[in-house]
Amino acid sequence: MDVEDQLSGFRDRFILPKGLIYLDGNSLGPMPVSTNARLAQVANEEWATGLIRSWNSAGWMDLPERIGNKIGRLVGAGSGQVICCDSTSINVFKTISAALALNPHRKLILSTVDNFPTDLYIIQGLIQQLGAGHELRLVPADDLASHINEQVAVVTLTHCNYQSGRMYDMEGLTALAHANGVLTMWDLAHSAGAVPVDLDGSGADFAVGCGYKFLNGGPGAPAFLYVAERHQAGVGQPLSGWLGHAQPFEFSSTYKPAPGIHRYITGTAPILSLAALECGVDLMLEADMTRIRAKSLALSDLLIALVAQRCAGHSLQLITPENRGDRSSQVSFRHPDSYAIMQGLIASDVIGDFRAPDILRLGLTPLYTSFMDVWNAVATLGGILDARSWDRPEWKTRKKVT
Amino acid sequence: MDVEDQLSGFRDRFILPKGLIYLDGNSLGPMPVSTNARLAQVANEEWATGLIRSWNSAGWMDLPERIGNKIGRLVGAGSGQVICCDSTSINVFKTISAALALNPHRKLILSTVDNFPTDLYIIQGLIQQLGAGHELRLVPADDLASHINEQVAVVTLTHCNYQSGRMYDMEGLTALAHANGVLTMWDLAHSAGAVPVDLDGSGADFAVGCGYKFLNGGPGAPAFLYVAERHQAGVGQPLSGWLGHAQPFEFSSTYKPAPGIHRYITGTAPILSLAALECGVDLMLEADMTRIRAKSLALSDLLIALVAQRCAGHSLQLITPENRGDRSSQVSFRHPDSYAIMQGLIASDVIGDFRAPDILRLGLTPLYTSFMDVWNAVATLGGILDARSWDRPEWKTRKKVT
Repeated sequence: MDVEDQLSGFRDRFILPKGLIYLDGNSLGPMPVSTNARLAQVANEEWATGLIRSWNSAGWMDLPERIGNKIGRLVGAGSGQVICCDSTSINVFKTISAALALNPHRKLILSTVDNFPTDLYIIQGLIQQLGAGHELRLVPADDLASHINEQVAVVTLTHCNYQSGRMYDMEGLTALAHANGVLTMWDLAHSAGAVPVDLDGSGADFAVGCGYKFLNGGPGAPAFLYVAERHQAGVGQPLSGWLGHAQPFEFSSTYKPAPGIHRYITGTAPILSLAALECGVDLMLEADMTRIRAKSLALSDLLIALVAQRCAGHSLQLITPENRGDRSSQVSFRHPDSYAIMQGLIASDVIGDFRAPDILRLGLTPLYTSFMDVWNAVATLGGILDARSWDRPEWKTRKKVT
Repeated sequence: MDVEDQLSGFRDRFILPKGLIYLDGNSLGPMPVSTNARLAQVANEEWATGLIRSWNSAGWMDLPERIGNKIGRLVGAGSGQVICCDSTSINVFKTISAALALNPHRKLILSTVDNFPTDLYIIQGLIQQLGAGHELRLVPADDLASHINEQVAVVTLTHCNYQSGRMYDMEGLTALAHANGVLTMWDLAHSAGAVPVDLDGSGADFAVGCGYKFLNGGPGAPAFLYVAERHQAGVGQPLSGWLGHAQPFEFSSTYKPAPGIHRYITGTAPILSLAALECGVDLMLEADMTRIRAKSLALSDLLIALVAQRCAGHSLQLITPENRGDRSSQVSFRHPDSYAIMQGLIASDVIGDFRAPDILRLGLTPLYTSFMDVWNAVATLGGILDARSWDRPEWKTRKKVT
């Protein structure tokens, strides 16, 4: 399978430690080779030499839009609808605020109990601030469709669930929402660069996403947000900082939103981190999402099959959908000792991650993961399970961050 | 004066183009030499090699607090009250929201007409979202004290004005505010690393500040915020993202704020930009704010005196206070053709900046600016004014960003 892999050449475009099998690119993608040179250029040429002039001469002012448009091509968004800024959490605040403002007679926000927590936390903070009867209703994912009705202002969920690796039907849920006068806000944290997404084609209203996972943008890379063009003129957002002003350098004392997507910018972007993100995005564009998806599914098929074969009888419960159409680019299992097993894997140079309460999560990233990597990872996992070598006191106590 | 300058050795700690006189460190500080090595370390060792493990092993999780505490030492804040995160604008939203929550029976936010616009824009966005009778009242700076009364929930201003270079009396205004039951939020964008600040000693309640100006943290470096310890347990903030949760990796669906200042964190920090900021902050700590302040005043005294002497008769109107106690670390002049004159200065390798509508702004940064630089800058300015060499059509039309 590796011999026939059309994407195998991309492995050399990343800096990865030798001998390491990295199945955690869904949490932090590795560093592209090109990022190193780009960072040196931003630091030494643009910052140290260009100094303040680089806001114009090096195009720093244009980066949020330029990179946003590139990410747009990865998630099916036409030009002028995606902007790179802030963190995913901050962008959830902006987009949910905007959605509520567009649907002012409804107070209900609908989501799933297993949505990524920061989305829920941000909405809880927002409705506490708004008061006036706003409510966040959380339902099981399987019941979501039945709760979409004319009471709901906005439905929001993570397109690809971070625990299970289940992918939701963006087009169908969006159509159902619209039929009920409900707006949609999609979290693409585990979708952008991982699976094909068609925001425009699905009729999505708002979306947010993450730069440091499948986009390989670097630790804490800036996030992005999408606002469908039809909504842009009709609404602003409350984090109305100066760089989202129509004329920021007029220094007027009254906020006037910039046209289009620019009004979703708040303050000054962290340029070093933003420039690094572009290198990761460029690689994804070069590789093409259709080819990435095909290999991703082949990798997860193989992983699921090999675990079923090699780890049978070890209480690993697959929670990722076996149906390819419902599967994102990771495979997850439940096991009562997932945390310790993951410590054992990491100690054996197979890096995945643990997610509370009992999930062992293996990310599949076609640009730098081979079929042999999957084979070897499962062999290592099987060996650890057979020998119970994970059964150590120091691996059974969870550290602060995993 | 340069021979006797105790700080002159710091010039070699920065990378600066030869022959350039850089009087814009109040807009974007130059790159410290140490930043280059640190960026390479974060990229190649921590990100590329450590990968996801670096959140623990390289201490990425601790950076917001560690750098926050260091900045705290520059602004008179004891440990555990400053955290590094997001942009200044975002942090204005957090701190003003918290101040209003602490003073719930008052609806009035007081500030000055010439406060930095993004502070005002953010407050406008916040009160539009809050509704319910909240009001932002803007008054001339000289009238501020007379408007502090028992109607006001929070008074907010920029400690050192970005246009005039006027510094306000933090201790006196804070005492007056507290006598009226009013909370204070200070914007230290032009103070941190520029002038001595004593947040704890002044009894300040909240503050925000910027990493990319006098702290030399790099373009768009993360910002910081301060919450006095006495307020921390009693209030949260609406941008309640997962990294401000008491137990972020429990992935509970209900937000529970972390103790202390950590609840002011929202999402994941841009690590490349955050790590770069620490190098700039470390340099300021090494140099000591008392020595920096002494040289800053000597530089601005000289600049004011030389301009009065060399540029007499050219309609340059000094708007920076001549009284040293009211002066920050910049000197500003009004002139009807400030924009074109600044273009002329930049073309002559003297970089300051223009601020609308007619302000020529010269930042004074003692670690890399010599007295000879000031002499030469004024000589260049005088020559440009004498020859009217700024009087070119292409310099009279303002570009998008200056």
